[in-house]
Amino acid sequence: MVSRRHPIDVSELVERARQAEPRAVARLITLVESGSPKLREVAEQLMPYTGHAQVVGLTGSPGVGKSTCTAALVTALRQVGMRVGVLAVDPSSPFSGGALLGDRVRMQEHATDPGVFIRSMATRGHLGGLAAAAPQALRVLDAVGCDIVLIETVGVGQSEIEVVELADTTMVLLAPGMGDGIQAAKAGILEVADIFIVNKADREGADQVARDLRYMQSLGGRHSEAGAWRPPIVKTVAARSEGVAEVVAALDKHRAWMRRTGELQRRREHRAAAEVEAIAVEIVRRKFGEIHGAAALHELAVQVAAGKLDPYSAADELVGSLVT
Amino acid sequence: MVSRRHPIDVSELVERARQAEPRAVARLITLVESGSPKLREVAEQLMPYTGHAQVVGLTGSPGVGKSTCTAALVTALRQVGMRVGVLAVDPSSPFSGGALLGDRVRMQEHATDPGVFIRSMATRGHLGGLAAAAPQALRVLDAVGCDIVLIETVGVGQSEIEVVELADTTMVLLAPGMGDGIQAAKAGILEVADIFIVNKADREGADQVARDLRYMQSLGGRHSEAGAWRPPIVKTVAARSEGVAEVVAALDKHRAWMRRTGELQRRREHRAAAEVEAIAVEIVRRKFGEIHGAAALHELAVQVAAGKLDPYSAADELVGSLVT
Repeated sequence: MVSRRHPIDVSELVERARQAEPRAVARLITLVESGSPKLREVAEQLMPYTGHAQVVGLTGSPGVGKSTCTAALVTALRQVGMRVGVLAVDPSSPFSGGALLGDRVRMQEHATDPGVFIRSMATRGHLGGLAAAAPQALRVLDAVGCDIVLIETVGVGQSEIEVVELADTTMVLLAPGMGDGIQAAKAGILEVADIFIVNKADREGADQVARDLRYMQSLGGRHSEAGAWRPPIVKTVAARSEGVAEVVAALDKHRAWMRRTGELQRRREHRAAAEVEAIAVEIVRRKFGEIHGAAALHELAVQVAAGKLDPYSAADELVGSLVT
Repeated sequence: MVSRRHPIDVSELVERARQAEPRAVARLITLVESGSPKLREVAEQLMPYTGHAQVVGLTGSPGVGKSTCTAALVTALRQVGMRVGVLAVDPSSPFSGGALLGDRVRMQEHATDPGVFIRSMATRGHLGGLAAAAPQALRVLDAVGCDIVLIETVGVGQSEIEVVELADTTMVLLAPGMGDGIQAAKAGILEVADIFIVNKADREGADQVARDLRYMQSLGGRHSEAGAWRPPIVKTVAARSEGVAEVVAALDKHRAWMRRTGELQRRREHRAAAEVEAIAVEIVRRKFGEIHGAAALHELAVQVAAGKLDPYSAADELVGSLVT
């Protein structure tokens, strides 16, 4: 809660966060997540410090070992001296507002490491939704000097996909024995993944998962073009940290490729365009709300509910009242 | 696929659908779901026939027996001569685009009943998302003379909630022995449910689920106000059709209460306002896209990606270029 007697000094908060003071970082993220009126001021002040972090999305079905993998990856990145941010996105119950998956226990070892910032975000309860809140939280972690920000998310649901789309590099985790592991790896997954991780590689079926992935890659798609990035398939046993160094190497390689080809710039501009557009749409939605206050939207809604006007014509009128 | 040689005659299609010709109904729904250019024409022609159907949302965690309950309910409603529409909303894989839950087998008995229209919708693959497509599909089922349209959806995820919000009457299913059944029934569920169904009532723990619900209701909230609707708790064994007649009675009672109090009108106007606003936002988004074509959004995105401009100021510029 913000006290009226002590208004937030954004400059001071940003300064303290830039010195990696965990409470200041947490406070900044809370500010931007909640759509505070200070949001614009915070974004403005953070902008000059952004663009350094490699944003890495980590997704996969429940049970493939995402949390274990994230924890092992954080350890490995810390060992090479990197500052690491973790944004853990939990699908949350529509009714309780509480997170269904609260299993952050594997991250406990990092909880007191000053070079690691961990933040859990529920998919609900953010102004404008997770899709609006996540880029802001990312920006904070980027600006406070994280070299890598890992976004860990369950690969199911629209919100989670929107979050994955924030990443420079997307890693898709698979594991053998997940019912029909390769089912998850149909068509679309080849498009979204920059790196495949076959976790629990000590279990039966791991080689088959990797073979199936390779076979699907051989079928072509964008990765078969000359100079294109061909997503590597890395086998890990994250619980024993096996293969994690190879994941770090693959991340390095992907970043280098993205820089060399201009892909990093393209992805970030695409991301920025999506963010700007989403904020602009929110501004317009608020203006509709003001019109609503002036009863225009209500009048239109009454006619639509009565079957006297179709919603498209009503929307045209609403837009016409706002737009030149 | 639409053939160029045989352009769609919307009037004829609407006419045939109004005579309950299943293929015409299916074709209309496909048209509106896919955001066809004919969408506006279809909506316009359907409007005069809308407003008759009671839209009933049916939601609950996986495993409580939603499909079984829907099937039993359809049978009961058919027995009293009602025309019934079913909109089954399946969460779908983000990658494959295929539905995770395809279990419509219990509806097979209704597949050839001319008084029942069943439509499955995946949560993805619709222009503007499920939230945009579902009201259109509902409108078709309403306009072709359904007395009740059941929307069956898994009670998890943003899209599903948006769909539940389309209902006149929302039924929440619970079942004993669902791990921690009552957990799902925290705070918010009391607000969203108009009718509670405790399914699998022949199992141990069913009475406890009902008692817990009653206890929570006794704690107050909006339902304790004078004249307010107090959600009944109906016990069913849907697999044996037990208690289903009581569900039908509860639906009747809720509809009568909504009509008497003006709540039906309020909900429908609220829904219409949300739909009109969403369409208006889409129109504006498209206009931004046109601006994008003119490179303005791209220019702004480049500056944001470079850290030279914050996204809020960029959005202000974008809106400023469009709005008076």
